[in-house]
Amino acid sequence: MGSEVRNMQVILKKYVTGFPKESDMQLMNSWMKLSVAEGLNDAVLVKNLYLSCDPYMRSRMTKNEGSYVQSFTPGSPITGYGVAKVVDSANPKFKKDDLVWGMTGWEEYTLITATESLFKIQHTNDVPLSYYTGILGMPGMTAYAGFNELCAPKKGENVFISAASGAVGQLVGQLAKLMGCYVVGSAGSKVKVDLLKNKFGFDEAFNYKEEKDLTAALKRRFPNGIDIYFENVGGKMLDAVLLNMREHGRIAVCGMISQYNLEQPEGIHNLMYLIVKRLRMQGFLVFDYYHLYPKYLEMVLPHIKEGKIAYVEDTATGLEQAPSALIGLFSGRNVGKQVVVVAPE
Amino acid sequence: MGSEVRNMQVILKKYVTGFPKESDMQLMNSWMKLSVAEGLNDAVLVKNLYLSCDPYMRSRMTKNEGSYVQSFTPGSPITGYGVAKVVDSANPKFKKDDLVWGMTGWEEYTLITATESLFKIQHTNDVPLSYYTGILGMPGMTAYAGFNELCAPKKGENVFISAASGAVGQLVGQLAKLMGCYVVGSAGSKVKVDLLKNKFGFDEAFNYKEEKDLTAALKRRFPNGIDIYFENVGGKMLDAVLLNMREHGRIAVCGMISQYNLEQPEGIHNLMYLIVKRLRMQGFLVFDYYHLYPKYLEMVLPHIKEGKIAYVEDTATGLEQAPSALIGLFSGRNVGKQVVVVAPE
Repeated sequence: MGSEVRNMQVILKKYVTGFPKESDMQLMNSWMKLSVAEGLNDAVLVKNLYLSCDPYMRSRMTKNEGSYVQSFTPGSPITGYGVAKVVDSANPKFKKDDLVWGMTGWEEYTLITATESLFKIQHTNDVPLSYYTGILGMPGMTAYAGFNELCAPKKGENVFISAASGAVGQLVGQLAKLMGCYVVGSAGSKVKVDLLKNKFGFDEAFNYKEEKDLTAALKRRFPNGIDIYFENVGGKMLDAVLLNMREHGRIAVCGMISQYNLEQPEGIHNLMYLIVKRLRMQGFLVFDYYHLYPKYLEMVLPHIKEGKIAYVEDTATGLEQAPSALIGLFSGRNVGKQVVVVAPE
Repeated sequence: MGSEVRNMQVILKKYVTGFPKESDMQLMNSWMKLSVAEGLNDAVLVKNLYLSCDPYMRSRMTKNEGSYVQSFTPGSPITGYGVAKVVDSANPKFKKDDLVWGMTGWEEYTLITATESLFKIQHTNDVPLSYYTGILGMPGMTAYAGFNELCAPKKGENVFISAASGAVGQLVGQLAKLMGCYVVGSAGSKVKVDLLKNKFGFDEAFNYKEEKDLTAALKRRFPNGIDIYFENVGGKMLDAVLLNMREHGRIAVCGMISQYNLEQPEGIHNLMYLIVKRLRMQGFLVFDYYHLYPKYLEMVLPHIKEGKIAYVEDTATGLEQAPSALIGLFSGRNVGKQVVVVAPE
């Protein structure tokens, strides 16, 4: 373990304004020893297997002070959620060859010093390991916390989900169906709409790009109004939803991907309906709910194994594909959860 | 009681667009018998003593379908909260000479058929009867429900209130002070700002019209951020507040008076902060909380009698002054709760 190995990295060149481009990132080779240096108590060195492309990463490409997530550091590798294998450990909780998921680097090997939110994976061969970047990892917990904890869903309620074929949306819809709700999703292509209806069992789905009048589009699918809106997109869709909410409705604000690349976010004009309809609108971050992770796994794993919950991934192979995979999120190119395979297991 | 008496009325001439004017209303004399006609079970006939001018009445001057309050009927008297004395009753719960508060007409006498939310007043001479249009009536319950029930305030938290010298705002600030919060209010004139600081005991207050940069104005008063925002105005103030909220903050949306006269409400651009700061934003209507009224009275009456809660009214005398008093709300002409005295007690 004394000699150095190549460590290919995806570097952010500089902070990004507007729509991010592949050329905002750069592949670079560095070299490192595959052992944790002395004195780095609690650190683990991992080999990255799968990396997760998530919408929130856009905000880290911008210099933002006082935000909930640190900005990336230009000149350094991008960081994000991933699945990895422990190569060396100075941390008593992890040992060599353990499989873990959590915050890692966009590179072949990463020295992780902040191990508090690194989860050990009890891997079994009946679910793909890559699922820990999605349904069994952060996006899964996001769907669960946002829907079950914030929305307080009841059987028979009307649920609408935007960006519904993404990693989070596809699960929210299935959790809602399991609870006996009427579920409609929006997405940005015919393929995704078909997926929602035929693979994920949504009652209805529509392509928002083909609807001239979003308010009318929602009214048709929800003649009696929406009880729960799982918000992933923001902008015009939110305004249309506010008009279509039912009294005492709830809106879980998970993301606003339509706004991330705008220098000035669009204005929302229909907030008066919060009063008129007594709505609750609540933002959340998954970090606040990780204590529920064991409970979540216990619930979701049997459903996946029995085929009651479906899950779709879009995989890019090789770290070289990572910049393009990440950019693709913002034009909606991915179908399902976007994963980058860095190394075969 | 067989003969008819004059009943002067304030009539809405037609639905209003933009800023309402006195000439949108008209005084008219009608004639009526001072007895409940046979067959009108549960109805009561009242003599109106005090009428309440409230911001929400603006939305009733517009034709709005499916809103929480019915639009006024052009050609008919305006309706609103008031204090009245029962003249005749076919309702076993009310008898002649009872004092009541609730929904009544802008006229000298009103036949009230919807008596479910008519409250009987246990009047004592140590509080003015007109207070039942404000601190002891609907606006008081609005402040109590919005602050105590929705905001879940804790000692030491930072509270901001817009339109803070109004009927609701002045009470929210005092409830927050009693709870040990740091309290800042905004208002639209020096007189009102002085009132907030010197009469209602706010820690700080400012005139929003004199602040070029609302975000900076709030930052100066809340260097550590706002835990609770009691929203009465909407628009630019809301955007500035969102930037200044603290993590896990709460926003009770009571009203958006700055928007009521606009044909298209202003856009709100900073809703992303709902996520980043994990904020809860909730609209409410006082009707949903009237079951708490006895509990509220029990709490607030002793405070008023002991001078621990102050209350300021702006009175217009005579039904003839009612249109001008109502219009004055929207330019902020009133100082404190706007009341119209229809008849001496």
